[in-house]
Amino acid sequence: MNNIFEAIPADLKDEQCETLVESGRVRIERIVSKGHTSPETGWYDQEQNEWVMVLKGAAILAFEDDVSVTLEAGDFVAIPAHKKHKVDWTAPDVETIWLAVHY
Amino acid sequence: MNNIFEAIPADLKDEQCETLVESGRVRIERIVSKGHTSPETGWYDQEQNEWVMVLKGAAILAFEDDVSVTLEAGDFVAIPAHKKHKVDWTAPDVETIWLAVHY
Repeated sequence: MNNIFEAIPADLKDEQCETLVESGRVRIERIVSKGHTSPETGWYDQEQNEWVMVLKGAAILAFEDDVSVTLEAGDFVAIPAHKKHKVDWTAPDVETIWLAVHY
Repeated sequence: MNNIFEAIPADLKDEQCETLVESGRVRIERIVSKGHTSPETGWYDQEQNEWVMVLKGAAILAFEDDVSVTLEAGDFVAIPAHKKHKVDWTAPDVETIWLAVHY
């Protein structure tokens, strides 16, 4: 795959994460969601910084401090390490394609 | 700016590079080109790896080994450190928006 919009799996029962490139502590990945959200309880609490952009579809990211951010095509957000967050919603009827850089 | 497609400068006499986030040796930047190319002579020879994706518009990347890659929306390529390359062409009539991750 060398186009972020291609090779979308037909079966998206589970969210798909694919590492595009990795070197040392940096990992760039594509995530494809379709109605998927984070688990009902708990937060992502990551050791690394993450920069994430939605390229297609839509999603709502929630942070522990009660702030929610709606992301649509082109929207990006930097999530510092240990800033607790979760995915509250992704579009149920179209694929949401994310680019995530962990660093 | 928190959308990669927004805040495009009206004056693109020069290519625009904007750092979106930076931490340690990692830098994520947006580049907006409109007909810009690399200088006529010479190659980019970078100390760091670069992962680059075209999000809008079109560009041709050339490598010293005579390989050229045409990039359109969603196309990406990983350029290892010291792999000599240059931008041979970008679309003259629309903005080409790049996301570049230096790592």
